[in-house]
Amino acid sequence: MPEVIVYLAEGRTPEKKRALMKDITEAVVQNLDVQAEVVTVQLVEAPKAHKMKGGVLFSERPTAKPSP
Amino acid sequence: MPEVIVYLAEGRTPEKKRALMKDITEAVVQNLDVQAEVVTVQLVEAPKAHKMKGGVLFSERPTAKPSP
Amino acid sequence: MPEVIVYLAEGRTPEKKRALMKDITEAVVQNLDVQAEVVTVQLVEAPKAHKMKGGVLFSERPTAKPSP
Amino acid sequence: MPEVIVYLAEGRTPEKKRALMKDITEAVVQNLDVQAEVVTVQLVEAPKAHKMKGGVLFSERPTAKPSP
Amino acid sequence: MPEVIVYLAEGRTPEKKRALMKDITEAVVQNLDVQAEVVTVQLVEAPKAHKMKGGVLFSERPTAKPSP
Amino acid sequence: MPEVIVYLAEGRTPEKKRALMKDITEAVVQNLDVQAEVVTVQLVEAPKAHKMKGGVLFSERPTAKPSP
Repeated sequence: MPEVIVYLAEGRTPEKKRALMKDITEAVVQNLDVQAEVVTVQLVEAPKAHKMKGGVLFSERPTAKPSP
Repeated sequence: MPEVIVYLAEGRTPEKKRALMKDITEAVVQNLDVQAEVVTVQLVEAPKAHKMKGGVLFSERPTAKPSP
Repeated sequence: MPEVIVYLAEGRTPEKKRALMKDITEAVVQNLDVQAEVVTVQLVEAPKAHKMKGGVLFSERPTAKPSP
Repeated sequence: MPEVIVYLAEGRTPEKKRALMKDITEAVVQNLDVQAEVVTVQLVEAPKAHKMKGGVLFSERPTAKPSP
Repeated sequence: MPEVIVYLAEGRTPEKKRALMKDITEAVVQNLDVQAEVVTVQLVEAPKAHKMKGGVLFSERPTAKPSP
Repeated sequence: MPEVIVYLAEGRTPEKKRALMKDITEAVVQNLDVQAEVVTVQLVEAPKAHKMKGGVLFSERPTAKPSP
């Protein structure tokens, strides 16, 4: 505790996702004065056809930029 | 914002899922007076063996009707 | 099933929130061919100091527009 | 209602996961005086590279014990 | 890990809610072979006007039966 | 997008919670190459009687240390 759930679309490298979870863990440890051992982070990654922003699926977006 | 998460079992066509997300986006825009750009919808789709209702897995249900 | 969770900041009238939940219910019924009875919608409403977008708390935002 | 979401890492047998959902359903029925029909349980299972505890991914853990 | 989130409407006694969380913890320990120490359960309790089933708010339901 | 939900028990100061959300926003921006504007963080804060770890409610814990 606490538990952090991150909802995102697929398309990131394992390294970036690992680094994200590490930095979120650190953010919790620093700000809530808990030990890292009690901090859990889980990614809930959706296929791009299962996530929509502004009425547009991530699978329908132009791909010039990496889908965020 | 707001963010909408839909928990459902697998088994719907991409077209139905896309239409669902579009209509939810519209429902948020209409009722909360926000622009579509700020509305995010993500489906969290479970294999039928990972969702249970009434003590029965969706993978154990009779399939006469489309699994809801 | 399915279950819909809406994460939003406080500040909407009960009427708007009810209408939002009604329209989301309708969106699920229409697109997933289920009966309304199986559709659950829950709002998870945060105090404005518990929600941040773009690094800014909703409690820190200018209030000219209704907080979305 | 109520709806129960279980966030866990992959690596359990279908039998164990089914038994878990059955027991959770029973726990809700017993304690909240509702009928089983209204209880929904969904597992949100992450690949081991998408879940971190104590700053360590489940995919990085020693495997002597089954990953919890 | 795992983490269990229970979405429910308000209206239960503290004793029932505590017993529910205890039984869910036990269900996880028994079925996933983990120690109780790693199991987290959090209730996300909504005001009855923030939860809808079948197009009807829990605050609009007849109260003969305890709201589930 | 992405959306980050943090489940925690009550008992932190507004300053610590704000700093936590700021640092999580920064962690997302740095690691996923998105602009801060698209990052949403919401705290889902439970009363201590609504959160249990290891079979013990946060309201039942000794209070020598701040409840994490």
